[in-house]
Amino acid sequence: MVRIIIFGQGLVATHFAVGLEKLKNGEIPDYGVPLSDKIPVKYDELEIVGSYDVDTKKIGKTLYDIAKEVFENSNIPSQLKDIVVKKGIHLGSMKGLPFKVEGLEEEKGLLNAINELVNEWKALKPDVFINVITTEPANELYIIENIEKALMNKKLSASQAYAYAVAKYSRETKSSVFINAIPTPIANDPGFVELYKESKAIIFGDDGATGATPLTADLLEHLRERNRRVLEIAQFNIGGNTDFLALDMPERNIMKKKTKSSIVEDILEYNVPNYIKPTGYLPPLGDKKFVAMIIEYISFNNFKDELYVVARINDSPALAGLLVDLVRLAKIALDKKEYGTIYPINAFYMKNPGPKEAKSIAKTKAYDKLLEWLGIKG
Amino acid sequence: MVRIIIFGQGLVATHFAVGLEKLKNGEIPDYGVPLSDKIPVKYDELEIVGSYDVDTKKIGKTLYDIAKEVFENSNIPSQLKDIVVKKGIHLGSMKGLPFKVEGLEEEKGLLNAINELVNEWKALKPDVFINVITTEPANELYIIENIEKALMNKKLSASQAYAYAVAKYSRETKSSVFINAIPTPIANDPGFVELYKESKAIIFGDDGATGATPLTADLLEHLRERNRRVLEIAQFNIGGNTDFLALDMPERNIMKKKTKSSIVEDILEYNVPNYIKPTGYLPPLGDKKFVAMIIEYISFNNFKDELYVVARINDSPALAGLLVDLVRLAKIALDKKEYGTIYPINAFYMKNPGPKEAKSIAKTKAYDKLLEWLGIKG
Amino acid sequence: MVRIIIFGQGLVATHFAVGLEKLKNGEIPDYGVPLSDKIPVKYDELEIVGSYDVDTKKIGKTLYDIAKEVFENSNIPSQLKDIVVKKGIHLGSMKGLPFKVEGLEEEKGLLNAINELVNEWKALKPDVFINVITTEPANELYIIENIEKALMNKKLSASQAYAYAVAKYSRETKSSVFINAIPTPIANDPGFVELYKESKAIIFGDDGATGATPLTADLLEHLRERNRRVLEIAQFNIGGNTDFLALDMPERNIMKKKTKSSIVEDILEYNVPNYIKPTGYLPPLGDKKFVAMIIEYISFNNFKDELYVVARINDSPALAGLLVDLVRLAKIALDKKEYGTIYPINAFYMKNPGPKEAKSIAKTKAYDKLLEWLGIKG
Amino acid sequence: MVRIIIFGQGLVATHFAVGLEKLKNGEIPDYGVPLSDKIPVKYDELEIVGSYDVDTKKIGKTLYDIAKEVFENSNIPSQLKDIVVKKGIHLGSMKGLPFKVEGLEEEKGLLNAINELVNEWKALKPDVFINVITTEPANELYIIENIEKALMNKKLSASQAYAYAVAKYSRETKSSVFINAIPTPIANDPGFVELYKESKAIIFGDDGATGATPLTADLLEHLRERNRRVLEIAQFNIGGNTDFLALDMPERNIMKKKTKSSIVEDILEYNVPNYIKPTGYLPPLGDKKFVAMIIEYISFNNFKDELYVVARINDSPALAGLLVDLVRLAKIALDKKEYGTIYPINAFYMKNPGPKEAKSIAKTKAYDKLLEWLGIKG
Repeated sequence: MVRIIIFGQGLVATHFAVGLEKLKNGEIPDYGVPLSDKIPVKYDELEIVGSYDVDTKKIGKTLYDIAKEVFENSNIPSQLKDIVVKKGIHLGSMKGLPFKVEGLEEEKGLLNAINELVNEWKALKPDVFINVITTEPANELYIIENIEKALMNKKLSASQAYAYAVAKYSRETKSSVFINAIPTPIANDPGFVELYKESKAIIFGDDGATGATPLTADLLEHLRERNRRVLEIAQFNIGGNTDFLALDMPERNIMKKKTKSSIVEDILEYNVPNYIKPTGYLPPLGDKKFVAMIIEYISFNNFKDELYVVARINDSPALAGLLVDLVRLAKIALDKKEYGTIYPINAFYMKNPGPKEAKSIAKTKAYDKLLEWLGIKG
Repeated sequence: MVRIIIFGQGLVATHFAVGLEKLKNGEIPDYGVPLSDKIPVKYDELEIVGSYDVDTKKIGKTLYDIAKEVFENSNIPSQLKDIVVKKGIHLGSMKGLPFKVEGLEEEKGLLNAINELVNEWKALKPDVFINVITTEPANELYIIENIEKALMNKKLSASQAYAYAVAKYSRETKSSVFINAIPTPIANDPGFVELYKESKAIIFGDDGATGATPLTADLLEHLRERNRRVLEIAQFNIGGNTDFLALDMPERNIMKKKTKSSIVEDILEYNVPNYIKPTGYLPPLGDKKFVAMIIEYISFNNFKDELYVVARINDSPALAGLLVDLVRLAKIALDKKEYGTIYPINAFYMKNPGPKEAKSIAKTKAYDKLLEWLGIKG
Repeated sequence: MVRIIIFGQGLVATHFAVGLEKLKNGEIPDYGVPLSDKIPVKYDELEIVGSYDVDTKKIGKTLYDIAKEVFENSNIPSQLKDIVVKKGIHLGSMKGLPFKVEGLEEEKGLLNAINELVNEWKALKPDVFINVITTEPANELYIIENIEKALMNKKLSASQAYAYAVAKYSRETKSSVFINAIPTPIANDPGFVELYKESKAIIFGDDGATGATPLTADLLEHLRERNRRVLEIAQFNIGGNTDFLALDMPERNIMKKKTKSSIVEDILEYNVPNYIKPTGYLPPLGDKKFVAMIIEYISFNNFKDELYVVARINDSPALAGLLVDLVRLAKIALDKKEYGTIYPINAFYMKNPGPKEAKSIAKTKAYDKLLEWLGIKG
Repeated sequence: MVRIIIFGQGLVATHFAVGLEKLKNGEIPDYGVPLSDKIPVKYDELEIVGSYDVDTKKIGKTLYDIAKEVFENSNIPSQLKDIVVKKGIHLGSMKGLPFKVEGLEEEKGLLNAINELVNEWKALKPDVFINVITTEPANELYIIENIEKALMNKKLSASQAYAYAVAKYSRETKSSVFINAIPTPIANDPGFVELYKESKAIIFGDDGATGATPLTADLLEHLRERNRRVLEIAQFNIGGNTDFLALDMPERNIMKKKTKSSIVEDILEYNVPNYIKPTGYLPPLGDKKFVAMIIEYISFNNFKDELYVVARINDSPALAGLLVDLVRLAKIALDKKEYGTIYPINAFYMKNPGPKEAKSIAKTKAYDKLLEWLGIKG
């Protein structure tokens, strides 16, 4: 069994939980799970054993109750009745957003809060931790010493605190994997990578590669392979879920902009004026975002072509599908004892694949590297 | 030097001729030439030594004069003043199109016409032949015997007759390469491949991979690698050049539909209802075609996403840029003595890569195979 | 009360029946019904009293049963259990389509079939007849004499036969309205208009103005009012309902092309190269068609702008919503005794507004004329 | 003759000047000039007699020299050699933008600067003033007293100062028209309208209706007339000209957002969540902006449709074409002595038509009102 803990019981986590149980029940096909049955870890080996959130409306509720609110008419798997959301770490990660929140660290201090979590996990024996809290502002910490200082001064973000706790748990109890599906630099922070190596733990990250960014990566690769000169690229994103609400705040928008726009120069190897960032929040769009993109390029004989992409993408299911792979890859990575972070996994599944010095590559090239890492033929 | 003969002095050939001389003159960057300076054959080793057409308005004119009509205000390289279009083989390939045409075979019979061409080439010593005549109706011939029978009965298409002549020239004088950039099955015809092997000659083909089809291939691969289930795909194309006029005729449209839609099942490995074919002819669009595409697919948890692509693509320059690579690859292939047809080249540059039994693969995967064939690191 | 008969119990008629009953039950808002509560005829004055079809799978079924197949999970209004589909006139209108059909005229001859219908209606006392059979090939008949000749020779289309029957019923029993929501020329056939005038009956037609065509009309008007010179317009349509299947057949496609492309020159007053016609049939799209459009135009100082429209439109509900207005306008027209055909109604609701000599105008201008006819302030 | 002064010799003014002279020379068709030859004021009655700017690179140059930089290869009308750009009023309107600027008021004080302008105009005898300076931050002043106070405290924006000067000139010398083609509230400021009435002068304004906003207005009207319920609208704009650079600054962006988004509720008469504002600055796009739009709406029977618009619009020529009408309408308005502001003109040509209490209406309805005001039949 692969035992899973969730940080942030929002839309993505709820899609993950519902989809996973439906997969186990044979109620849905596994579309959107990239590796499907290509790897030996089966869906029914996966089990969610805990979930943490800071939204007071969610704390104490079961995943079943939360899922019922999200999926109005669908039948929710009854297995979710057994998982209750516990109070997690806040550290200001939801500051400014219109939710009533409470952090475990508020009553008892951060160190005690982390110890409490680690102790809970000693009983639950999780193998994998999924971080899908709302995009938060955060800074790189570079070295382990800084992480520890920040811990003392409560200058960590929630994700960083969770990542620290998971490392501690790995050190003290059993090796585990922290999947960082949001932009906070964890796999891209050499300090955390070092900490995880020392703790015999693994980070996958950062920022799950869904939506228009991986598509853009592959479009740019397509142009690069034809030696077409890209003049500029603009990619607009607008949606109505909590993440878009959060990304409407400049300090969070900048987190996403970094992970999204780095791909352009990494892939094309020259500088291209670009506008790639979350653009706005429009509630009626809900979780199905609207993406509009323009790419202009120079073709042979100096002729200019134009490419426009319009897409409607269900944001949360896309990431949830990747998570079904990532928790399974966590098992494989643990078996392989590849501690630290694993680029061939990050390169395909993440917008900003760690480690820090690694480049973004086209996702289709990353896919080949992933299969190679797995020892699978394409 | 690489000596080049052109069949069909239309827009593509004229873009190729003008662009090539401008490249040699350092007047334009080599955007749109995929391999750029990655291969050892340089642009100034390339020389056009002859051109054939059946349009009476073109026969006897220099490429310079023809280019002046196409590129209104641009300065045309003066080197093109030395190349005069000669009368080529018709065999009904332009039947029904509003052009006055004459075929070399009309006066002297097909066999004599072919002999005349082969004799001309013995003097010109071409290494490469580019076939860019207008899309014609044609049937596969399967075995060499059928080719010879068809030759006797004048049941060959113009491309097939040219391909036959090039094989004869290769046998009698020197090994050469026939680049078939149109849908007529040559590299996909086992009869021609066998004939070329016997003649120590090489075919690249069929149907140059420009426009929306290679982009579609890579988009489908992108979806396949995420295990998203494609529900349907429609791809509309409309343009105003002669090829769109020709493709408005059902017997020519079907030629293109075959090469365009085969990619879907080849890449996805399941059947997807699709509408992929040239859609119409609208003169004011000229050579810059309009492409509109829809792809719907199922993501995780059975959610449906939609992808729309709108593109404006200069049709002829795109293919001309590929031809600059293909004539250079011809040189390399001749040096390697890989007679018959070469899949790693066809797979990247062609819509319907030969040989017949070969599948279409994503272009980005084909690019890796091409580099591997060339011994180049990506 | 306004008593309604339906010809052709397909998707449109089923959406109309279901939507109408839901409106009467207060279960849905009246979105998509243009005049909403601006006219004095209320939804609960409307009553469907009969329906005819030639599909053997539908004949004898209730509208409730038919609706259940179309709207999988929705609750169907129970009122529809009372309406049973009767066998209608075929006259080859479904020829070539993959349905098993039977026409009332097959057993008893066309004249008898028409008489039987008229007699049924004498009992049912309908005020309005809606023609929404599948697009059929048909020719204009020009004068009443030709209609009668065609009747003798069975050279009428099904729509023409229905239209003839309704005129007869109007003459013999009570004035009524024939709403022709398909391309067959009825309101555009001077013979039928004359016949209706003589019969104290009214035609609304032809071809309900839904989908991209009315939008295109208003976009062209927008450009016209700025004196922008349209260079060309292409409008692709692809869908998966029966009408798209039918329109894939050339003789039916031409019917639609006529009603769709006439607007361009009517509105712009100069000739514009255009491609406006149903483009293909792709079953997975179902009733929600995909429309892609390009309009290029010259702006001030000879600069060229480009406009692309992509739309997803639920085909049948759109027309069904218009029908809710048209049956109510039928009541008003009957009260006004405006026999023949009524341009201010046709101009807004129809793709090809009759009478024949009338031009298409922008729909937004037609809307003003409609309000004026109704004596309503915009 | 209609004598014209320009404020702000940027792209729009340069397109206006070049286009106008070319029109007079018969070198271009009058596409993009809405009223074309429908009004009695002819193009060759129009004469530019002066131009003001604050960019030190432009002051002292002729319009010919400025045009040469903008239109690389085109032949520039030689008439433009006679018009030299003079130093205008700055008042911080270009603050924060990367241009070296100087204002006439800096050396001599604002009152003296205004007097100097008015005196110049007494000699030049202009009839019309066009305000096309870069979008500036500005506040409404409401009453004449506030305008005068702001003048004393230099709290006016440049546009407000120009507008004040034109009123003064009108009072002292001859009635004239101030065309405010930018978002600063002038026609929407009751203080200025009152001042103009008293000065026997006329304002047209505010913010020339080009680009996606008037198109959106007419699309919304199209949906309104079908009683479709709009769920949300997002309209992205990105371009590479100076105005987009300016609109990247929040205090200027807000000016444009106001004039752009007010149309939605004005036309639909209910509140619709929307995102309509300039979205970004991307230099390679130059003056040809990229617009992407989504509108989702509810059709009959509660079905949801989606409409996407992608457009490429040459920004400056579009407004320049409107200005050719507006200077001619100025002449007609002066002849009619309709002092203050004229809604039937503003409603069609302006994004935010004054006076303040007036609503935005669909442009196609405004067009009818304009023709009515002119006494012309549509």
